Order: sequence, then C-alpha cells, then structure tokens
Amino acid sequence: MELTTTRFGATLPGWVTEELRGVDRMLPDTEDRMRLAHRLAGRNHLEGTGGPFAAVVSAAGSGEVLAVGVNLVLASGLSGMHAEVVALCLAQAGAGTWDLGGAGRPPVELAVNWRPCAMCYGAVLWSGVARLVIAGEGDEVEHLTGFDEGPMRPDWKEQLAARGVEVHTDVLREEALATFREYGERPDVVVYNGGGRSRSRVLEVQ
Amino acid sequence: MELTTTRFGATLPGWVTEELRGVDRMLPDTEDRMRLAHRLAGRNHLEGTGGPFAAVVSAAGSGEVLAVGVNLVLASGLSGMHAEVVALCLAQAGAGTWDLGGAGRPPVELAVNWRPCAMCYGAVLWSGVARLVIAGEGDEVEHLTGFDEGPMRPDWKEQLAARGVEVHTDVLREEALATFREYGERPDVVVYNGGGRSRSRVLEVQ
Repeated sequence: MELTTTRFGATLPGWVTEELRGVDRMLPDTEDRMRLAHRLAGRNHLEGTGGPFAAVVSAAGSGEVLAVGVNLVLASGLSGMHAEVVALCLAQAGAGTWDLGGAGRPPVELAVNWRPCAMCYGAVLWSGVARLVIAGEGDEVEHLTGFDEGPMRPDWKEQLAARGVEVHTDVLREEALATFREYGERPDVVVYNGGGRSRSRVLEVQ
Repeated sequence: MELTTTRFGATLPGWVTEELRGVDRMLPDTEDRMRLAHRLAGRNHLEGTGGPFAAVVSAAGSGEVLAVGVNLVLASGLSGMHAEVVALCLAQAGAGTWDLGGAGRPPVELAVNWRPCAMCYGAVLWSGVARLVIAGEGDEVEHLTGFDEGPMRPDWKEQLAARGVEVHTDVLREEALATFREYGERPDVVVYNGGGRSRSRVLEVQ
C-alpha cells in the first residue's frame, strides 16, 4: 500500500502572536502566568480555533515564558491538540529535546487554566515538567462547558509527585470559571467530544 | 514577547513507506493488522526512530488500513509522539476531521501492540475510534522494556465502553512480548521516560 498522509502538525494562530506582543517574556509572579493563560483561553474560543483552554510553559525559577499553547482541535482538525499538548510540543521543539527535565536543564513549569484531561495528564507525565500550576480541579469545567474530561485516578497528584511533578492549584480560580461560563452560554459552539458525542452539552459519562 | 517557535509536527520515516510497499491495504483479518503493528514496532527501535511501539488505524468493517503510526519520540524530539498519537493524527489529517466517529462515518479501529499508556488512553477517548485492539495489557511491557506506562484506572475498559469504544485483547500476544524482550536486551537504547528518569531500566514508580 501507498500512504497518502505521512505528516501532521499544528501552528499557533496569528492572533496568539498578536496577543503576546504587549506581554513581558519574564513573568515571575505565578498569577501573571495564569492571567496570560486565562487571556488566551478566553480569546481562543471566540476566535474559533478551539475550546476555552490555554497553557503556558515557563522556567520555574525566573518565570521566563518558553512557550504558550491554546486548544487547536478545531483549527488543526486533530482531536489531540489540547492546549497542554500544544504548549509542551512547542516548548520541546524550541528546546530541541523530548525531555524538559533532562539532566542539566533548569526546572520547567506548566500553567493551565484547569486540571488537565485524562490525555493531557499523561502528556504532563512524559514531558519532563517539574511543576504543574492549575486554576482549579473540580468537575465545574464539565458542567459549565459540556466537555468530557475523561476518567482520572483519585491519586492523580500523588502519581505526579512520585514522578517529580509538584502540583499547585486554585490560582485565579474564579477567572477560570468565568471563562467556562461564558463559553457554556454561547449557543453556537462545537463541543468536540469524540465518537459523535460532540454536540451534546450534557455528559453521557462521568 | 516574540515567539520563536510557533509550529511543530511529525513525519513518518521513509522506512515505514518502504515497509508498507509489500503490504495489502485491505487487511480483513485482525491478526494481519496486528502483525503489521508488530512488524513496524520491531523495526522502529532498530531504526532508532523511537521505542518498540506501533499502531494501525483501519476501517472496522473492511479492514482497510487508513493510517499507521510508530513511536517517534526520538525522531521528532517530542515526548508525546507515541505510536497511537501518530496513527490517530495521521488518520484524522487524512480524513479531514478531528472525530473519526462523527455522524455518517464508518466505525474505525485502532490496533496497538500493547495497552496504550496513560496519555494514549486519553488520546483514544477523544479520537472517535469505535474499537481498540491490543496484543496484551499486563505490566510485562514495563518489566521487559523499562518504560513507565503511567497510572491506569482499574475500570479503564468500562470507561472506554461507556464512551462507545470496545476493547479486544490478547491478539498475537507472544509476538508482542518477543519484541519487548528483544528491545529490553539491547544495551544501547534510550528509554525516554521524562524528568531525567530516562536511562534507568528499573521503574521508580509502579
């Protein structure tokens, strides 16, 4: 057989570059990094590039932003292009390594505007990040937006800790919920759960 | 700030195209699809493109191969480029949709030479595949290869079933173990667990 498709990828939309123009590369305050994630998440769904999710990869010590990601499922046509995946891939592509926590490298943080879904949780595990900062972790995101986040283990934080990833939660939580609420109130969005379950705002599975 | 890296992606290595030349596009027998996965997995680590893992996406009814993937962590420099992710992305890129199970589409199968890791499990959930075929599911893969597969929920199959994905296991299981054993016996490989844990063949975490 002859393969017709042998490559794939994703590109940050131009509006992200534009949005970052006024933002300092050094964001030593955790809330500022989360504020950037919220800003990108809030614009992402309005631009139609994907859901209301964004992520920021930074040097854990200095707060230097290394990469940002937004959910690009709609823009890329690929179900796996969640904000965390995009941000981690861009950070690794920029650094030229598949291990952001490799020997001799300064520790790296991933900030996301909610707890990663089941897939992105695994992506964090393999990325080499040393710190995960999230705005919150409850099922509010599912109720407000209609997205299925997938099954998580009750000990998900301990499993990260055992692999050298510390978790900080509840950073600008209310701002995250405001974005999800705004998204959930839009009548015109595609909630892209796979398997033909995409248009429902009510979860079939918890 | 100005972003330096705004895109990323992965490309199937030339040897995969070459390997597929003698293979029929229609593989109605499940074992033939798994045999193809084993063949690609066995060659992948020898070619140095990634670990001993491969995946085949096909039309569940006819067995027409829609895409194949191999683990490209080393070739792409991206920790998330596992075989399942690569195969699903290529299938979606080829089909022009982020939902392989969207309305009006024939059901799609993903065959992998072992149970997906924590990340790829989530990737399967969002892809829209209707059937997951695996060669096996135990921790043999971790013991034989040294790879950390991440934490899974005991009810992982039920969680898939609740989202419309049926699981078939133990298809050419021994052949999978033979590949992992061969890989595990190589003295010269990079076991690319993230966070600087990459060179150990003994798991820190179970």
